[in-house]
Amino acid sequence: MAVYTEVDTEALEDFLSLYDIGAPLSIKGIAEGVENTNYLLHTEAGTYLLTLYEKRVDPNDLPFFLGLMDHLAAKGFPCPTPIKQRSGDVLGKLAGRPAAIVSFLDGMSVRKSLPRHCGELGVGLAAMHVAGADFDITRPNALSVPGWRPLYETCAGRADEVLPGLSQEIESELAFFETHWPNDLPMGVIHADLFPDNVFFIQNKLAGFIDFYFACNDAFVYDIAICLNAWCFENDGSFNISKARAMLQSYTLVRPLSSEELAALPLFARGSALRFLLTRTYDWINHPEGALVRPKDPKECLKQMRFHKDVTSAAAYGLDV
Amino acid sequence: MAVYTEVDTEALEDFLSLYDIGAPLSIKGIAEGVENTNYLLHTEAGTYLLTLYEKRVDPNDLPFFLGLMDHLAAKGFPCPTPIKQRSGDVLGKLAGRPAAIVSFLDGMSVRKSLPRHCGELGVGLAAMHVAGADFDITRPNALSVPGWRPLYETCAGRADEVLPGLSQEIESELAFFETHWPNDLPMGVIHADLFPDNVFFIQNKLAGFIDFYFACNDAFVYDIAICLNAWCFENDGSFNISKARAMLQSYTLVRPLSSEELAALPLFARGSALRFLLTRTYDWINHPEGALVRPKDPKECLKQMRFHKDVTSAAAYGLDV
Repeated sequence: MAVYTEVDTEALEDFLSLYDIGAPLSIKGIAEGVENTNYLLHTEAGTYLLTLYEKRVDPNDLPFFLGLMDHLAAKGFPCPTPIKQRSGDVLGKLAGRPAAIVSFLDGMSVRKSLPRHCGELGVGLAAMHVAGADFDITRPNALSVPGWRPLYETCAGRADEVLPGLSQEIESELAFFETHWPNDLPMGVIHADLFPDNVFFIQNKLAGFIDFYFACNDAFVYDIAICLNAWCFENDGSFNISKARAMLQSYTLVRPLSSEELAALPLFARGSALRFLLTRTYDWINHPEGALVRPKDPKECLKQMRFHKDVTSAAAYGLDV
Repeated sequence: MAVYTEVDTEALEDFLSLYDIGAPLSIKGIAEGVENTNYLLHTEAGTYLLTLYEKRVDPNDLPFFLGLMDHLAAKGFPCPTPIKQRSGDVLGKLAGRPAAIVSFLDGMSVRKSLPRHCGELGVGLAAMHVAGADFDITRPNALSVPGWRPLYETCAGRADEVLPGLSQEIESELAFFETHWPNDLPMGVIHADLFPDNVFFIQNKLAGFIDFYFACNDAFVYDIAICLNAWCFENDGSFNISKARAMLQSYTLVRPLSSEELAALPLFARGSALRFLLTRTYDWINHPEGALVRPKDPKECLKQMRFHKDVTSAAAYGLDV
């Protein structure tokens, strides 16, 4: 939510001379993304987003992220498209950081989603899964089961600072998932972070997805499960089955779910709640004293995890099964 | 340098329904301005800046600020133009704050100014002084001599925390200016805060001025004096006479300076250094512990004040007098 790296005009002009998008007219640091520095850039040719990748992004992953956006956009999926330098490269260096320019995607995230937004989301998610099917670079999901325990261990027994008894509950869930996680479900490229901030609408119609910096290869149901948690719980923690039904039904119109995927959905929803519980617990324990950005509450995810633990079939999410 | 007030899509749509600029397509909080919340707004009709006025701005001053931008833009001066609601109003309310939409002004500030930028600045400054001559709302300068002592007194003898002996030096300067400040020089609307952040260029040509929220009625030489300090000293504190000459000569091409104005310039330059020394000292003493924004160094202004104290004529600024 901040500008981390300043770009001066001279350096920007040099950088833009590698592209065919004219001279810079304006550059504004924008409060978007927590990992990178983002600028809204006007040039003689139009409006773009300029991203400088900060240290939390592994530069080795950038060809995957940028290649994926390029691939999806070429298939007509609405997302930012990397702009190529005259050399054909999409990745350069600016102010000492890896840097890329992508097309600017209009649209706004919704703060109070309605079932119709969830329906739009479902169609978009399935369309992304289909469009990504033949993308040929792969990136393993660092935040699936094998990554959870090492992440948990960096919290070094401090999870009870979030809530007494949390350590024990996490331990027990980790042990469960380490023996019960299915690895044979349909896989492909997933977004893996499709929270409302990353989904744009214009007048209640889907305008596109942004922020592909957690994208990876994993089971499609993992992505659906993340969306269930990110979109279908109200602020008071209650589950909104109308939103879930709208999302899942719309998804299946574009990409039908197999009976194995449907059966696995409660388990993945519970697992994805644990995945965000772990990263939020980490951020909660490690956020700097006096930082402006308040860490998100891990207890939200805990409630969701407990909810899904009691779910026995996808019927609880509003689907006819 | 931050987004203070969040605007949700529903509230934005309601607000925009008062205007004739179409539906919103995108809204991005931008890191610009330290007093207000600023959003870059795309609508069906184009690109705009949406400003929500936070508590440091007196709402009673807004008709002056917005009226001035409207007046200057109507005269062809390059600055943001307030967009009128269908009712003709330029000021509304959004997220509980006074709010206005202005046209988006392309351009970028320069970090390392050259004499040619100072020349462009001089022409622009004089053009603004001329264009503002018949603007019929007035606003006294709260940061001229009568405002300095009350401001200094809020620092309650803590100026020596900035530098030992500073209190005594400020006291002595205040006493001097309270008896030696000329009040009979040509006056009009001045910008009063024309630091490099507030002046835009495109390919080294002046693109316009922004941030009129310190504008007021005062002697034109006060504005020139502020620019001398803001643009013509190097990072090491040395005075760059080439920049000063470029600025002043360009200014006089558009609006000649009288001999009284020329003679008063060293005094105003010394006074404007004191004005920023006082506000920076205030910010230095009062900035919250652990705040992200580092306050600007008051000692820069102190060096400038001492420099101008030794100047006996505007010849020291590169002018033939």
